Amino acid sequence: MKQSANWTRKHLIGLENVKPSEIDVIHDTARSFRKTLGRSVKKLPSLRGKTLVNLFMEPSTRTRLAFELAAKRLSADVISIIGQSSSLTKGETLKDTAKNVEALNADMIVLRHSCAGSSLYLSNVVDVPVINAGDGAHEHPTQGLLDSFTLRDHLGELKGKKITILGDILFSRVARSNVFALTKLGAHVTLAGPATLVPSGFTTLGVEVCHDLRAALADADAVMLLRIQHERQSSTHFPSLGEYTSMFGLNQNRASWLKPDAIIMHPGPVNRGVELDSALADSKRSVILNQVTNGLAIRMAVLYLCGVASDLEKKGKKK
Amino acid sequence: MKQSANWTRKHLIGLENVKPSEIDVIHDTARSFRKTLGRSVKKLPSLRGKTLVNLFMEPSTRTRLAFELAAKRLSADVISIIGQSSSLTKGETLKDTAKNVEALNADMIVLRHSCAGSSLYLSNVVDVPVINAGDGAHEHPTQGLLDSFTLRDHLGELKGKKITILGDILFSRVARSNVFALTKLGAHVTLAGPATLVPSGFTTLGVEVCHDLRAALADADAVMLLRIQHERQSSTHFPSLGEYTSMFGLNQNRASWLKPDAIIMHPGPVNRGVELDSALADSKRSVILNQVTNGLAIRMAVLYLCGVASDLEKKGKKK
Amino acid sequence: MKQSANWTRKHLIGLENVKPSEIDVIHDTARSFRKTLGRSVKKLPSLRGKTLVNLFMEPSTRTRLAFELAAKRLSADVISIIGQSSSLTKGETLKDTAKNVEALNADMIVLRHSCAGSSLYLSNVVDVPVINAGDGAHEHPTQGLLDSFTLRDHLGELKGKKITILGDILFSRVARSNVFALTKLGAHVTLAGPATLVPSGFTTLGVEVCHDLRAALADADAVMLLRIQHERQSSTHFPSLGEYTSMFGLNQNRASWLKPDAIIMHPGPVNRGVELDSALADSKRSVILNQVTNGLAIRMAVLYLCGVASDLEKKGKKK
Repeated sequence: MKQSANWTRKHLIGLENVKPSEIDVIHDTARSFRKTLGRSVKKLPSLRGKTLVNLFMEPSTRTRLAFELAAKRLSADVISIIGQSSSLTKGETLKDTAKNVEALNADMIVLRHSCAGSSLYLSNVVDVPVINAGDGAHEHPTQGLLDSFTLRDHLGELKGKKITILGDILFSRVARSNVFALTKLGAHVTLAGPATLVPSGFTTLGVEVCHDLRAALADADAVMLLRIQHERQSSTHFPSLGEYTSMFGLNQNRASWLKPDAIIMHPGPVNRGVELDSALADSKRSVILNQVTNGLAIRMAVLYLCGVASDLEKKGKKK
Repeated sequence: MKQSANWTRKHLIGLENVKPSEIDVIHDTARSFRKTLGRSVKKLPSLRGKTLVNLFMEPSTRTRLAFELAAKRLSADVISIIGQSSSLTKGETLKDTAKNVEALNADMIVLRHSCAGSSLYLSNVVDVPVINAGDGAHEHPTQGLLDSFTLRDHLGELKGKKITILGDILFSRVARSNVFALTKLGAHVTLAGPATLVPSGFTTLGVEVCHDLRAALADADAVMLLRIQHERQSSTHFPSLGEYTSMFGLNQNRASWLKPDAIIMHPGPVNRGVELDSALADSKRSVILNQVTNGLAIRMAVLYLCGVASDLEKKGKKK
Repeated sequence: MKQSANWTRKHLIGLENVKPSEIDVIHDTARSFRKTLGRSVKKLPSLRGKTLVNLFMEPSTRTRLAFELAAKRLSADVISIIGQSSSLTKGETLKDTAKNVEALNADMIVLRHSCAGSSLYLSNVVDVPVINAGDGAHEHPTQGLLDSFTLRDHLGELKGKKITILGDILFSRVARSNVFALTKLGAHVTLAGPATLVPSGFTTLGVEVCHDLRAALADADAVMLLRIQHERQSSTHFPSLGEYTSMFGLNQNRASWLKPDAIIMHPGPVNRGVELDSALADSKRSVILNQVTNGLAIRMAVLYLCGVASDLEKKGKKK
């Protein structure tokens, strides 16, 4: 595989400023990689000899595993630094940690951090590619890429399609990255949920805000649920989990409001019986496990494309 | 190495239903692999490009390391998910975790779990091979395989040989898997220890139960000690560690009751001075470290055989 | 690369008894390896198929990562056992843990342990190479090697050069290993800091002890700061962090006492604003990040040289 003329980014910080044609390049690359996953020998030599460092200052087994497996499929070595248990990061600034990682000859850094803007900051202080794996309430670009990739699989081109994102949207980087990706690809996005979690200010992002669940589901081609972050919620956003479920949980009755071929998505892990009925999570409508596999292919594509761009930049500097 | 006609299992859940000829296949395969361990270049390409996931919902560095090293010797990639520290597993069912791991393109799952039956359950919900690395008080099949393999090394064929298993047998998956393996291979097994830890009901498994330590040791060709799980014991099973040691600990005096060439085994880690005298653990009678090395060879054999069986099944489905 | 006639050690326990010519061999080997770090494909096949076990009974992400990356660059597999979270090490002696690791076919052990002498002890009970990654207040030989390597880069040959080590020297294995390395290479070493942290007894090591910071800095070619271990300090050694900083912290004013081309070193992680002013840490004088990269090359060299020596010893035994 060669470098695409449509991809020159070394870092992937967010989707807000990515062009639709760049999303196409990532999706095309991910589609190629996905085909290799079923082979009996799955390793590709693309990143052989390179070292990826997962710098996860906020815990996330799920996303970290996907990046780790993606890197290994491309023959890279992977080192994971888990912030909370690491003496590396104790009493040290993020910049110092990253400069140390770079001095240890890392070739790429995947950063998960609780502060919005941390990935952008890091990309300005190190020379190696920085991939944002979630920065506070800002963006989670690979999630937005894998969700839009999954939607394209099932709905074809997204122009004019209606996608409803339902749940705890207020501080959701997943929702933000999806809004950027989906609107760029021409979809109509509706954000739904209780007014406390979905303030009307979101309309400035070019989406519809809807607090009537039936209306939000009625004409949707896909409904994307967000995990209720009960560990983050304070009592001010909604009275109780049970209250949320009774008002906005997607159950069999409410799913009947959907069009017959509308699909159900969830970034995982699902709180069965809270935001999503257990039987629905396992139903034919659900593409939740496809999202997981697509997440692997998307991370392979992002690591590959940013890695090649970085190599080309280095060669350019040498000349 | 090719697929044996005598091995068609994709999963290894326990030894209760395994045929003696299947134990022979595993032992023969392990013997071949063990020869490769001494080489200066030890890697075999058997599982190149495959990903093994160690799903350890109960902590066990020892068993996990053995599986990890076995997989790496066969050129597989290994990802370890340690349940208690993993956000992947928080508030998620075992099935969901496993389905996610499978969707991330894992090729095999090694499961350690505190619930008896968890591995069997998992083998019914995922398509990839499931290897049981210990499920509650049920089975720990690779331990039974490595112990019987070690016994064959030292005693030759086991038909008619007398093996005494001594210690905390009541909830021991190690004892159960050994009973199944050893009786299938024709050995006479005696379970020994205090009546509270070795109830007479065990005779239904086709073994002898003996509460007289001297009688249990007198004619044994091997004595296999079990670790006293002091963290699990409630005061009802025996009054104190000291009491256990004074009544059933294997010390120099009691070892003199053994036949001169009888061997001493222990699955580790040894509580020196509790169930086993420290000098005995280091004596010529002790084959404890051989068990460790054999554990590596056995896990290589199991991963290899189940991996090949799974590949053949997949090819069969495609036709 | 072949075995040097000047290197026959299988273990690296400390620098106290290493010859200057052995330091030269390590530095020469590290220099060769460092050249390979910039290549686009960086893996060398030197330790292919070998397994390195990082046995870290004391936490140290930084040193562990450097060894892990060094081993992977040489194509070895790496297993890290972190003592405090490991059930392997619970209630088990260090010897038993190491014998188990060896029985699992490990080819080398890198040991970090809080007890002085633990690496020497381990080298007497296992057959595989033991590399000391820090044993209590005794030695941290790879740190001494990387620091002297960095000094040679910047100052050329060290004969007659003046190196000041400043800070918490009393219990510092970093200081001890540096003293051994630097005096062997002909440098004049001054230990500086408050009298409570730098007792005059250190002069028996062939170095100068100086409690006057200005005098210690005035003629130095390099000043090597040590991290103030505030977690280890009791109040008896100095009244407070602020007190230490005001008396011995290296700030812009005190740096002006240095010769214009004197360099500043620190083993990391830097407590910015405590023992070292933040701007100085990032200044042209600072070679802190060079130390990190050199640490990778030094560990590659040590693993390589001890590995080759061990292989030769094994071949010798076979004859």
